[in-house]
Amino acid sequence: MSGAPTMRAALLSIGDELTLGQNIDTNSPWIAAQLAERSIITVEQRTVADDRAAIATAVAELSLRADLLIITGGLGPTEDDLTREALGDVLTPGQALILDDEVLRQITALFRTRGRDMPQMNCKQAMRPCTMKAIRNFNGTAPGLIGRLGVCQIVSLPGPPREMQPMFIEQALPHLALPPVKDVVLAGSVHQLGMGESDAAQRLGVMMHRSRNPLVGITVSDAIVSARVRATGVYDRATRELEETLAEIEQRWQPYSFGRDITTLAQSTGALLRRAGRTLATAESCTGGWLGKLVVDVPGSSDYHRGGWVPYSNAMKSSQLKVPASFIERCGAVSEPVARAMAESALAQSGADDALAITGIAGPPRDDLPSEKPLGTVFIALARKRGGSAYTLVRHFIFPGDRLTVRDRAAKAALQMLRFALLDQPDDVPLLWEFVALDPNPPAIRSHART
Amino acid sequence: MSGAPTMRAALLSIGDELTLGQNIDTNSPWIAAQLAERSIITVEQRTVADDRAAIATAVAELSLRADLLIITGGLGPTEDDLTREALGDVLTPGQALILDDEVLRQITALFRTRGRDMPQMNCKQAMRPCTMKAIRNFNGTAPGLIGRLGVCQIVSLPGPPREMQPMFIEQALPHLALPPVKDVVLAGSVHQLGMGESDAAQRLGVMMHRSRNPLVGITVSDAIVSARVRATGVYDRATRELEETLAEIEQRWQPYSFGRDITTLAQSTGALLRRAGRTLATAESCTGGWLGKLVVDVPGSSDYHRGGWVPYSNAMKSSQLKVPASFIERCGAVSEPVARAMAESALAQSGADDALAITGIAGPPRDDLPSEKPLGTVFIALARKRGGSAYTLVRHFIFPGDRLTVRDRAAKAALQMLRFALLDQPDDVPLLWEFVALDPNPPAIRSHART
Repeated sequence: MSGAPTMRAALLSIGDELTLGQNIDTNSPWIAAQLAERSIITVEQRTVADDRAAIATAVAELSLRADLLIITGGLGPTEDDLTREALGDVLTPGQALILDDEVLRQITALFRTRGRDMPQMNCKQAMRPCTMKAIRNFNGTAPGLIGRLGVCQIVSLPGPPREMQPMFIEQALPHLALPPVKDVVLAGSVHQLGMGESDAAQRLGVMMHRSRNPLVGITVSDAIVSARVRATGVYDRATRELEETLAEIEQRWQPYSFGRDITTLAQSTGALLRRAGRTLATAESCTGGWLGKLVVDVPGSSDYHRGGWVPYSNAMKSSQLKVPASFIERCGAVSEPVARAMAESALAQSGADDALAITGIAGPPRDDLPSEKPLGTVFIALARKRGGSAYTLVRHFIFPGDRLTVRDRAAKAALQMLRFALLDQPDDVPLLWEFVALDPNPPAIRSHART
Repeated sequence: MSGAPTMRAALLSIGDELTLGQNIDTNSPWIAAQLAERSIITVEQRTVADDRAAIATAVAELSLRADLLIITGGLGPTEDDLTREALGDVLTPGQALILDDEVLRQITALFRTRGRDMPQMNCKQAMRPCTMKAIRNFNGTAPGLIGRLGVCQIVSLPGPPREMQPMFIEQALPHLALPPVKDVVLAGSVHQLGMGESDAAQRLGVMMHRSRNPLVGITVSDAIVSARVRATGVYDRATRELEETLAEIEQRWQPYSFGRDITTLAQSTGALLRRAGRTLATAESCTGGWLGKLVVDVPGSSDYHRGGWVPYSNAMKSSQLKVPASFIERCGAVSEPVARAMAESALAQSGADDALAITGIAGPPRDDLPSEKPLGTVFIALARKRGGSAYTLVRHFIFPGDRLTVRDRAAKAALQMLRFALLDQPDDVPLLWEFVALDPNPPAIRSHART
């Protein structure tokens, strides 16, 4: 849209398996990310079926819209592989494809190294429009093609990622006229948990203006709210501005922001445990082991994770975590006293410094739930050793959604509660989904210190 | 291309995170598959950035090319959510968006049930072009939109799959003019775990010919090998032929085939536990709770799951699961005796009828691993009560892959071991990844009966 000399790319994926929804196109995101690293903006991704006219139309349209068109798929030897023919229709209309002797020799040789004669149908893979050049495929039979339509450079690559990726990097990129790397496009992200999307946006304010550089956008995935930042400019300046923007977002989202890029909440919480020299234990009912799985997903977690219990049945809550049966009878298994007892017992039995306990109602929906404990009700307790004393915080949540969603949010909220504690945040940092009693004198269920 | 009155759809996905390659678009394949089941052909999928002009151009072009345009993304409350505005530019050029009072009430009410006031910026989500109607969102704040441009029906849905999918099925489809269904395309799948892809294909033989109807293909995802079957024809015949093909595949893949369509291995194993009136307990080290999570993912699993332990540290293995410290010293924590002791202790302490235990080396790679226990070494034990006696089977695996892959395979292999036992299969049904000793007189580590 601007007059800046940014190179614009379009991606075209070809295949019935894609338009029928049987396969997911992972080539386009991979190529888009590769291009972004080289300051090339992908303005459009398009997918069409194994249909010669549809491919030709897409090539013609996209070549008017972009400086670089990268096509994947449709270069195989079978009848439904039509990319070569469609490229011929657009680049050399009225002219037949020509046979590339050199490519034919390469394909024949490849079959011979596998101890086989080349099947007749593979001849087709040596055909090309006369204005395009073949790109060698070192990982399969389908060669790629490179050429030009007007000002648009066109590259056609095989669909299998194992063939496409090395061909793109090693064979295609070196033959393209790419923008001098003056202006680069650098991307990064900051993640937070516990604040709603709108609140997160409000805290960023004018940082989200669409004309800003670096550009900031917000996306949400399984309750993780992410700011995605894109900085365009000369390398040094873009690097500095990207860093400044990411740091500014982290600052504005405190204490909810837990990391950047591929950092998970369990990773960043684990790093705080390691730094503090503290150890963790868990006791999970409705999550069934999910919290432990997230902790153990992090390589090296054995440095700080002792392990835990999954007292899914009430009997196991009593026998393994010493939850008094009277608590369960009087208050129910999903209650503040039971969460507290689970966490305190896990702390004592494991010898860990911190213990998280989760008990909740994740579904399926039932008719016999008491009105004060709807589906999604979860109590999360954090028991901690601090100096010579112990301390337990219990929070009460109502998570919306189905069985998987409630449990996913519960496991993440538990990690965030621990992270807040390791950062010495106050106990009452608001968390989205937290149950807020409308009763002005609610029963005291928050926290209390013990010795 | 043919003269048949096939309905043609186009899909448009919107988001910088997609054109930058930061996220993979899973919405388009999901929608395309839904449409295919309803005899609607997707002729094009397109992805553009959060750019009002680019969105408007795509909407205008695609509406000329398709009878149905389905848009996902760009309906959030923040400044980079521009789908509503772009739809207005194309459908009602020159006219401002209008505020839908009903929708505003719904969003306000949704925030109120969460105990919060609606942030000002969410007002934006109640705006729409005056010629479109809002579609209610029961799983989030962003309503969808439905309308028409020329002969093309247009549906705009929120991007998060958890909101998009139910809205598409429950709110959008019933309001669309869809083609009468004469020839239907019915799809189904059969899943197995424990046999390699080529072995699975060999067992199917000529059933995999590309000209067959129903058509059978094989895909693999996270070690689950699936036969995907597509039957085309008039409804009654296609239904019968689909069923016959699925049943035939299940038969040929026995005892590895565990279910169809969305059935998980944990579901089908859980159903066998329920039918047998048996209960389960787990003890997990390297999986850290993943096995328990899979079991608890199944609604109603509290009927048969007692819960378990995650003795991640050696100290927890000894203190909670009574694994003799001498076993750990002599054989290591990842060994047949430790797996056996964990399972037998879990069985005894929980009172369950079946207990699964997992101990293994999942990574990260280390230099100090003994050659007989490479990365990926996992011992899985199944302890069972049978009549008045107890019985323990231990199997030794070497799973290839990284930390997540090894642990994923281990949790699934454990479930398949239990499933085989519940089906009274012999103890030595081969499982892919099982360690086979080359020593002709290997130490006896398989199974033994005890009383």
